[in-house]
Amino acid sequence: MSSKLVLKLDVLLVPGLLSVVDLSANSCAVIDILRATTTITTALAAGAKEVIPCQNAIEARQRTSALEDKTYLLGGEEKSVKIPGFDLGNSPLEYKPEIVRGKTIFFCTTNGTPTLKTAYAKSQLPVYIAALLNLSGVASEIVKQVEGKAPAKAVLICSGSYGNLAQEDVYCAGLMVKKIEVLAGERNITLDLYDGAQVAQAFAASNESNALEVLTTSKHGCSLEDIGFASDLAFAAQIDRYAIAPLFNGESITLQSG
Amino acid sequence: MSSKLVLKLDVLLVPGLLSVVDLSANSCAVIDILRATTTITTALAAGAKEVIPCQNAIEARQRTSALEDKTYLLGGEEKSVKIPGFDLGNSPLEYKPEIVRGKTIFFCTTNGTPTLKTAYAKSQLPVYIAALLNLSGVASEIVKQVEGKAPAKAVLICSGSYGNLAQEDVYCAGLMVKKIEVLAGERNITLDLYDGAQVAQAFAASNESNALEVLTTSKHGCSLEDIGFASDLAFAAQIDRYAIAPLFNGESITLQSG
Repeated sequence: MSSKLVLKLDVLLVPGLLSVVDLSANSCAVIDILRATTTITTALAAGAKEVIPCQNAIEARQRTSALEDKTYLLGGEEKSVKIPGFDLGNSPLEYKPEIVRGKTIFFCTTNGTPTLKTAYAKSQLPVYIAALLNLSGVASEIVKQVEGKAPAKAVLICSGSYGNLAQEDVYCAGLMVKKIEVLAGERNITLDLYDGAQVAQAFAASNESNALEVLTTSKHGCSLEDIGFASDLAFAAQIDRYAIAPLFNGESITLQSG
Repeated sequence: MSSKLVLKLDVLLVPGLLSVVDLSANSCAVIDILRATTTITTALAAGAKEVIPCQNAIEARQRTSALEDKTYLLGGEEKSVKIPGFDLGNSPLEYKPEIVRGKTIFFCTTNGTPTLKTAYAKSQLPVYIAALLNLSGVASEIVKQVEGKAPAKAVLICSGSYGNLAQEDVYCAGLMVKKIEVLAGERNITLDLYDGAQVAQAFAASNESNALEVLTTSKHGCSLEDIGFASDLAFAAQIDRYAIAPLFNGESITLQSG
């Protein structure tokens, strides 16, 4: 008689919890749907070779100073707008195939890239890049990754906005909890949800078909709309546009071969 | 034609957000229903003269060393159990009228008392003590306190468990958001909810009549049950048992005269 496998699943609702919570796990994902993880996912889906997260613009410029111009692009934002001298901002709509195909993108943003680097440092694990755009793709990889592990544990990390909670990230995490539950159930794995996962799942369930409304009523979403990025919100609100699971290995973010 | 008043309402889902968020507000409340704010509320409802939150047992002992024995009690916990040499632990059931009436209680706990002191230091405001036991009492005082202020802002702060999120505190905060919305509406004040308040409200709404289940399925609730405090959970899950709003003035917690 085999006992049923259990997957412990936590959601960190704000990035500051990375310094509080035990991050020993089998699988981690970082979420920053407005806009870093949305943009990274879009860039890789559009054929970018890799995305290299940098702590700030200075690091990005230093690391590219000796590279051949045609091989890379500088992308990202400070205070939500394109950094002076950079090729691209942090709008996913800029990352078109004809612009990014085959390129290495050195990328820095306010919330998502620092959270990603901290998550990697704390977990000592490759970290998935998750957004509404690819939530099933990442959920599927997480379930594959934890299968057979005992104890099995996965952690979803919300990047938030300037350290504070961003409801759009909590929403994405909650939908992922639900998706992971379904996929795990198919493999006879039951979930044990930590408090953060329970709260995220309830928030997502109460707004299940209202992705765009969650984004447009969030404080960060409103501030992006105010400065002209309303179309980014509509793009970021698309669920499962891409069936991919970008992975950060501590140096660069690439698509999994599988 | 008078424009409608707006109350901005935020919920900090974990105490670490106190060092991230702008805490300039007209009214603040701290929540730690398992168990500090539940126990403080119970003690004052039972006739305690005042509760003095201390950072730790050393401070509590120092401050009482010169006091006359009959005037005070030492209360609180370390790792959930009574501190050696203290009169009372952190179970609300210990704080009976015949024990606490007229007494000053020097009180220290792991989560609630540090959060309370930090909230006071950051907000520079007297801070309400909120629990399920007295949520309408505090909600009512908050609405009275912000009335006529423009801009009006109130912040509810969840103490969590060892820095992490505790769903029972998020639940209490979410019910308070709902209650404040009703009471504010009666005074023609509309709410502008920050993301944290939206998430808390959704979590509370999805568990509206299941207070005890929220407590018994939380990680902290489970650990208290494991060490014999199941009856504390049942007690803490009672909504509006006491119509009081204890207030911390930076030194001691007392009942409002009104």
